[in-house]
Amino acid sequence: MSDPVAALEAALTRIEQTERSLQAWAFIDADGAREQACRVHAAAPLRGLILGVKDIFDVAGQPTQCGIPQATSTPAAQDAAAVAALRAAGAVVLGKTHTTAYAWLDPAPTANPYDATRTPGGSSAGSAAAVAAGHCQIALGSQTAGSTLRPASFCGVVGFKPTFGRIATGGMHPLSHSLDHVGIFARRVHDAIAAARALDATIVVPPEAPALRVLVSDLEGDEALEPSSREALARAVEGLRAAGCRVESQRLPDAVTRGGELLQTVAAYESVQRNGAHWHALGDALPPRLAELLAEGESTPRTRYEDALLLREQLRPNITALFAQADLLLAPCAPGEAPERSTTGDARYVRPWTFFGLPAIALPCGRGAHGLPVGVQLIAPAGADGALLAAALRLEAATG
Amino acid sequence: MSDPVAALEAALTRIEQTERSLQAWAFIDADGAREQACRVHAAAPLRGLILGVKDIFDVAGQPTQCGIPQATSTPAAQDAAAVAALRAAGAVVLGKTHTTAYAWLDPAPTANPYDATRTPGGSSAGSAAAVAAGHCQIALGSQTAGSTLRPASFCGVVGFKPTFGRIATGGMHPLSHSLDHVGIFARRVHDAIAAARALDATIVVPPEAPALRVLVSDLEGDEALEPSSREALARAVEGLRAAGCRVESQRLPDAVTRGGELLQTVAAYESVQRNGAHWHALGDALPPRLAELLAEGESTPRTRYEDALLLREQLRPNITALFAQADLLLAPCAPGEAPERSTTGDARYVRPWTFFGLPAIALPCGRGAHGLPVGVQLIAPAGADGALLAAALRLEAATG
Repeated sequence: MSDPVAALEAALTRIEQTERSLQAWAFIDADGAREQACRVHAAAPLRGLILGVKDIFDVAGQPTQCGIPQATSTPAAQDAAAVAALRAAGAVVLGKTHTTAYAWLDPAPTANPYDATRTPGGSSAGSAAAVAAGHCQIALGSQTAGSTLRPASFCGVVGFKPTFGRIATGGMHPLSHSLDHVGIFARRVHDAIAAARALDATIVVPPEAPALRVLVSDLEGDEALEPSSREALARAVEGLRAAGCRVESQRLPDAVTRGGELLQTVAAYESVQRNGAHWHALGDALPPRLAELLAEGESTPRTRYEDALLLREQLRPNITALFAQADLLLAPCAPGEAPERSTTGDARYVRPWTFFGLPAIALPCGRGAHGLPVGVQLIAPAGADGALLAAALRLEAATG
Repeated sequence: MSDPVAALEAALTRIEQTERSLQAWAFIDADGAREQACRVHAAAPLRGLILGVKDIFDVAGQPTQCGIPQATSTPAAQDAAAVAALRAAGAVVLGKTHTTAYAWLDPAPTANPYDATRTPGGSSAGSAAAVAAGHCQIALGSQTAGSTLRPASFCGVVGFKPTFGRIATGGMHPLSHSLDHVGIFARRVHDAIAAARALDATIVVPPEAPALRVLVSDLEGDEALEPSSREALARAVEGLRAAGCRVESQRLPDAVTRGGELLQTVAAYESVQRNGAHWHALGDALPPRLAELLAEGESTPRTRYEDALLLREQLRPNITALFAQADLLLAPCAPGEAPERSTTGDARYVRPWTFFGLPAIALPCGRGAHGLPVGVQLIAPAGADGALLAAALRLEAATG
């Protein structure tokens, strides 16, 4: 366990060296962090971990800008629930990381740490990039569509989204209340586990998992999937088999893809119900993808939204049934390596699991043809966060 | 939809007639309720429903006593989250219903509405009895072990416990944070659905369920189960079959019983961590079952608690696998009719589903040999609250 003061100074040095090109941070409070670092208890479980916070969460004394420079930005009075829990467990809160505007699709100013012409993904762009670049060891993000696992894959870090509802979202600016999840970024699964347990101590990780049955998504004929992600999946399958898991390939039911599509209706309707008036008030500061979401949400009839919620209930048994055959699913995180910065990348492989609220974790699994990292994701049944993290430890050890 | 003013006056009349023997209420604010009743919007979804609130939830302006008459009991400053949501949806908040002390096992002063020598169950004793006696149409309860479904069964009303974490517990006095669920009581499934949707609008109820596969718990040789509950189960099976469901009987895995046992360790440890100092301060006012819980929690080593959490993770796949064969489970709520008032009854059939956080609903299903109501419960996979409520509507229609 490293010394918090030393860890912070090392982080600040790396930030000084690379932040100008990376643009991971919206706000840094180095002095405040130094004060905290001196006071971390010797036995604190997150001692020595520097924390970046996606700029949709409140941090006491820091502005919350949600990815849009605000004319007035009063500092938040108190920490969001997740920030308070991590701080209480000994993490040093360094500052706020860049997010796409309101955690939707307009690219953040952040670059991919492996190639400045590529996106770090979104919406938790700064959190993923900051962890990848060693600016901090852990970071908070969120996921309403693909906002944690996709940037984790593009930046070569671990990205964990617990079961829907498991981590309190208080003090996190809501996008879509039935889809918003708190997300965690880390370099290593071990740190993601420590952070997850600080957020919810009832997440426990079985030390010795039995022989796991893993179902890998058969994407034969899927034209969106690039060779780099196919190779990452193959490496993961090989690693899991080497670790004693039984891996079988199967085409997933249509409910998976359908869930990913329906997410769009729910996100558009709920986000505009909640944020519509405010987004209108942004006027010229409203970025184009958010403007599209606003238009889509406003033209979505309530009945279509309710139909999507209904279909979620009707499709759910098809998803639940998958976990009778397998303890975990293995799937790609993204079509391939990070694309150019005009986009935050394609979230199609992540959206279904967000829609159904299942816990999922992205793990780096090698590099693609352009030398950029490529991740894979493991998915578990609702509530099985601990078993998922245990499997992630095994996959991490096997693919190293 | 009945007129709120008329519904309230009818409720107050029934209270006047029966409250002296029933003892369902810890606090009634008739004048405050009258003021609300006049102001309910004509289109409010809960218009005409009078609400009783278990006295572990805050209601603005009313004391929260948690089942122990407090020397000082300052009125709460604001409504608990669930109370605020139901009030906003048009329910008229009439007052606070009796709970066992801190929602544990010491009997509340409430009688069973069908037989004053019998328990209404617990811990949500007053909520179940008040709904059964027509003192209110809906009531809030909670469930940490068996505190909603068991009293619902004993009082012949509907008792619904949504998926763990789905309904916000803010402003509800915590007993055991990884087990506490908000519960809903109603006379009819229709009202339970309306209340559930007011608490979480993303709970949607599929209008036409496909041919449901129901697994009924095979309790051959279970000596705790009395004939009255066996007959209620048989009636439910018959009703479900008549409604077009496929019902199969199967012995449930040991993980079910084991989960129910492990719940005790988690409840004891967490509740004492949270409430221990306060319970000590109660001195002579600490009732005996709560004193036992305090002693048990204080003598539970942290490692035993963590082992129980770990076992929850390890057992969960056995529970999840059940829902590959079936959409729903059918099980007893209690061994039989309500026992005498020295106890709140046996929660063994309810505890496992609380432990694993699955949504469950109790429905009245006939009477036992003593003429008291007996319920059955339906259980669904995590998140499938809407599908569960749809099935409950069908079972209610079939068993009438």
